[in-house]
This record gives sequence, structure tokens and C-alpha cells, in this order.
Amino acid sequence: MQLRADSIVWDIGAGSGAVGLEAARLCPDGYVYAIEKNADDAAIAAANRRDHGVHNYMLIQGKAPQSLERWPDPDAVFIGGSGGELDELIHLSLTRMKPQGWLVMNFVTFENVGAATAVLKALDAQWDLTQLQASRSRPILDMHRLAAENPVWVVCATRGENHD
Amino acid sequence: MQLRADSIVWDIGAGSGAVGLEAARLCPDGYVYAIEKNADDAAIAAANRRDHGVHNYMLIQGKAPQSLERWPDPDAVFIGGSGGELDELIHLSLTRMKPQGWLVMNFVTFENVGAATAVLKALDAQWDLTQLQASRSRPILDMHRLAAENPVWVVCATRGENHD
Amino acid sequence: MQLRADSIVWDIGAGSGAVGLEAARLCPDGYVYAIEKNADDAAIAAANRRDHGVHNYMLIQGKAPQSLERWPDPDAVFIGGSGGELDELIHLSLTRMKPQGWLVMNFVTFENVGAATAVLKALDAQWDLTQLQASRSRPILDMHRLAAENPVWVVCATRGENHD
Amino acid sequence: MQLRADSIVWDIGAGSGAVGLEAARLCPDGYVYAIEKNADDAAIAAANRRDHGVHNYMLIQGKAPQSLERWPDPDAVFIGGSGGELDELIHLSLTRMKPQGWLVMNFVTFENVGAATAVLKALDAQWDLTQLQASRSRPILDMHRLAAENPVWVVCATRGENHD
Repeated sequence: MQLRADSIVWDIGAGSGAVGLEAARLCPDGYVYAIEKNADDAAIAAANRRDHGVHNYMLIQGKAPQSLERWPDPDAVFIGGSGGELDELIHLSLTRMKPQGWLVMNFVTFENVGAATAVLKALDAQWDLTQLQASRSRPILDMHRLAAENPVWVVCATRGENHD
Repeated sequence: MQLRADSIVWDIGAGSGAVGLEAARLCPDGYVYAIEKNADDAAIAAANRRDHGVHNYMLIQGKAPQSLERWPDPDAVFIGGSGGELDELIHLSLTRMKPQGWLVMNFVTFENVGAATAVLKALDAQWDLTQLQASRSRPILDMHRLAAENPVWVVCATRGENHD
Repeated sequence: MQLRADSIVWDIGAGSGAVGLEAARLCPDGYVYAIEKNADDAAIAAANRRDHGVHNYMLIQGKAPQSLERWPDPDAVFIGGSGGELDELIHLSLTRMKPQGWLVMNFVTFENVGAATAVLKALDAQWDLTQLQASRSRPILDMHRLAAENPVWVVCATRGENHD
Repeated sequence: MQLRADSIVWDIGAGSGAVGLEAARLCPDGYVYAIEKNADDAAIAAANRRDHGVHNYMLIQGKAPQSLERWPDPDAVFIGGSGGELDELIHLSLTRMKPQGWLVMNFVTFENVGAATAVLKALDAQWDLTQLQASRSRPILDMHRLAAENPVWVVCATRGENHD
């Protein structure tokens, strides 16, 4: 996400806050604006904020794009969950984002990757797609096998033409 | 495994017979000798042999290297399970195998890959290692994620120096 | 592809013949019909057929769906390359294929996976998607790293509703 | 690496400084001690430190374990390159590390993973192994394939018995 010390970050679909809170620690002179619709997740994120003593972070419980019009224009946007508003959120992020800003989105389904990249192509945005897969050791007898976690996809986008 | 129509194949740790029975179908003028220590697996392999009408295949229930001294020298050896006799089975396979023959071994643990490649290095054999990972689609809502299967390793070896 | 000894197989976009020729060896009482538009690939496939002494295999140099109307209905169809006629080839394969037959397609681009699964959804076919990734050992100093090959996707489809 | 705001971090084989400098940003009340033997890499790391205005970071050009005896006991150790002193560095890190500290090591060869885990087993340390693989989109015609990067392995260790 190419964060600087003073970056303004939006964290849409913040879940339990992991991405946004780490961003806040990396941007001590910046600020992170987060929104999460699920009340339990939002409560966990709020508790994590307190536990880590993070002051440059605010979290709204609600459903994006609600509230985004009141946030300052971002240097970086992270979309961890879109609740079906993916097209609108991509449009809004690329419109509001400062030049050279980055939009980063995580996906677990092929269909959402396809939908996101179709929107980005239509907007003539620059983007690329990364697939990540982790496997972790598990003991078996006195040895170790690798237990695979499911692949995830990360789409990174900025304004302008595709930079590939 | 570079099988020809007349290849002689050993299938050590045959499990339920999948590899050996497919080899037998690919080598109609050859023969597959299989051994499996687990009685239930051996019974399934025998049933699969009958179901597919495979005639150039025999299966012994037992523990390798038992019985291997009575089998003809192989063009190809597949080790799907070694029951702790890995060193001896690699030595025996490379010794008995015809020139240009291939030994193919499947592993699910890091430690067995390390043990097998250490033996192959000590024998100055040619070998390489392939890691395979598959992920399969699973429905989620009206979309599809990928569910990962665990990585497996395949070690292929022949006589002579490492060909990498 | 669940081939039986007497399966009729179509190999569309046969390339240098690897899939179709192995299918022919697995189906000694069946027959493989192959088509490849690239003349060089078709010549290699023909040479491979002769080298392996495969008799139950024919290859046409041309561009599918040309010629398919003269082939008998298949038990299995493999599409290794579609030359832009993907929709029509999927329709045709599912229409002509015998019940319980399988259509297997290989893809290297996200967009073609998306296009194929969209057609299969529209046809209410059963299908699943497998991602395969291999990595092979390469020497570095006196050790070995893994060099990754690019992921490929395999879509398997049959008639009827999605069986996941 | 479970860093806190006041963590003391060692970065051994710092390369161009990416890991250590991000750690320094995440630990504003802590300090990162880095060592890199390659002069060009060390110069890049020093330039990156200045560019990002990171003050809680020092880098020595040299070869570990040289200099480590003068550094305070760490909360976390990252080994990105070991220059053949892997056994000694693991011993030293686990001995000097504070309780609940984590040692994190990156590897690109099977043999070094095997060597590191053998040392950790001999020390009866807790450890696990993660394999990471990324693939990135590349344009092909008007579509996108995935180009795979080579797998890497991360070994995480702490004192005490294996926690798997």
C-alpha cells in the first residue's frame, strides 16, 4: 500500500481491525478511517485499538459507502469486504483517492476477482492481481507435513492505464 | 515414469492400486509387480484389478523389500509408501533397475524428502524434486472459492550424476 | 476424464498430441479423434503417434468446430486450446457428449476461466475447477531451491446441475 | 514476529533493510540492530533509513555473529541470510532472546530448511514452518495469466517444546 508516515487510509470492511491497526502504527502522523458492518467484529477491532494504544484510528460500525463522504480523501484504501457494493466502492475509491494513491482489495472467490477486474478494465485503471498461498507445518508421527491454507487474491489498483 | 508398452514396473507400497493399475493399462505388453502391507488396501487394489479387467498385474500383501528378490529387474519403480525402509528400497531400486530406468517416489513429509535426497546424493544418482499443489473449487453463496489440498513432493531418480 | 477401455475421446486443440495419445493408450478398444490448427504442432503429434505405434488415433489439421460434425459422439472431450471459439465448443461438447461423459478444459488465463464457467453456469451444467501448480528443484551452490511453474486451471464439466 | 511498540529487534543479514526498517516503524519505542556483510546492500539500507527518517535503527556492515555480543538481548530476531553460520546463529539467538521472543528465518533452499529444523529439534525448541508462494498477473493478449514466484519458507522458533 506504499504507506508514508502521514498517509490517510480508509479501511472498508475492517473485520477485527488487523490491517487498519497495523497501517495506523506505520503512519504515526497520518490517520486510519475504518468501517465494519458486523457488530461483533467492530467490537473486537475497538478492543484491539485500545490494547495497542493506537490513537490515529477511528472505527464506525456501519455499511459502506455510508459515512465515506465525511472522510478526507485517502492516500490508500483497503477493501477487505464489500458486502455486495463492490462496483460502487471501487468507483468511489478511485475517484476520491489522491494521485499515486493505491486501492488494495482482498478476495476469496473467483467471481469477485472477475467482477473487480472487469470494473477496473472499464475504468481504464492500472491494476494487477497477486495470488497468495501459504502452507503451514503440522506434525505427523515424528515428522512434519505441510497443511495448505486456501489461496487468496489481492488486487492492487491506481488511476491511469494498466501498468503491466 | 517414461513407460513403454513393454515396461516392467514395480509398485512398492501400492495402496489401493491406482498408480500400478494405470501403469499396467499403459504397458499392455509389460507387467506390473505390486506390494502393499495393509490388508484392506491390498484387498481394494485386488478388487480394482478385477473391475478394470487388468491381466498384466500382480499384487502381494506384504512388506517390501520382502518378495522383491523374486521379481524381474524393473524399467521403472514407484514407491508410494516405504514403511521406514526408505534407504534400503532406494539402494535396491537403483541397483536392480535397468539403465535409463526411473525411480519415482511420493512424499508428504519434509523429513522423508530430506532423507531420500540425502541417500540419492550419497549414491551420486541423478534426481530432481517436484512439488505439486492442487486447489479445488468449492461453492460459497453463489460463488466459488478455492480449497487447497496439501502439497506433495515427487522425487524422480535415475543412475549417474545429478542431471540438473 | 474417467476413461474406459472403449471410450471415444475428442481432443480439441491437440497441440503436440500428449493428452490424446495417452488417452489412446488407456483406451485400446476405443478411439481418439484429434484436431489441431497449428501445422507444426500437428506434424509433431503425427510423428509421436507413429513413434508410439498408436493405431486408435486420428489427427486432423484444422480449426474446430470444423470436422467435429463427422466424429462419433464422445464419452470424453478434452479442450486444450480453443482459438476463440470457447462458447461454441462447450455448447457442442455438452450436446454431443454421452450421458456421464466428461468435458475437461485447460486454461492459463483468468479471463478464459471466467468465460468458461459463465457458459457452464448458463447451461446449468455440473462443473468444478482445479488449480494446479508445480515447482521443480534447481541446483543453487550445493543445495536446491524450488523454481515455480505458472499455475494452470482445469475445468471439468458434465451435464446436469453443479455437483459440488 | 509479534512486535510491541518497545521491542528490541535483531536483523541479521539485513539485505537492503526492508524487514528491519518496517520493524523500526512498528516499534517506535524500541530499537532495531541490523548487520549486513555486503557493502552495496548495506549502503542501500542506510539510504533507505535516511529516506524514511527512521531514527531507532542502526546498521553495521559486517558478518554475524560479529558484533552481536555488543547488542542488547532481543525480543525478536530475524535472519534473512546466514552466510553459512546458521547453526551458531540459531543457538545464539535462542540463548540471548528474551522469554516469549521469536526467531524468524527465511530460506530459499530445502537443504537450509532441513539444517535449521534439525538444529531446532536438537535444541528442543518450539518451531513451525510456513511455505509462502505468490503468483502475479501478467498480460497476455487482452487477458491475464499468473506468473509464479518461487516458493519461500519461513521458520518461526521460540524456546521450549514444539508447540504444534
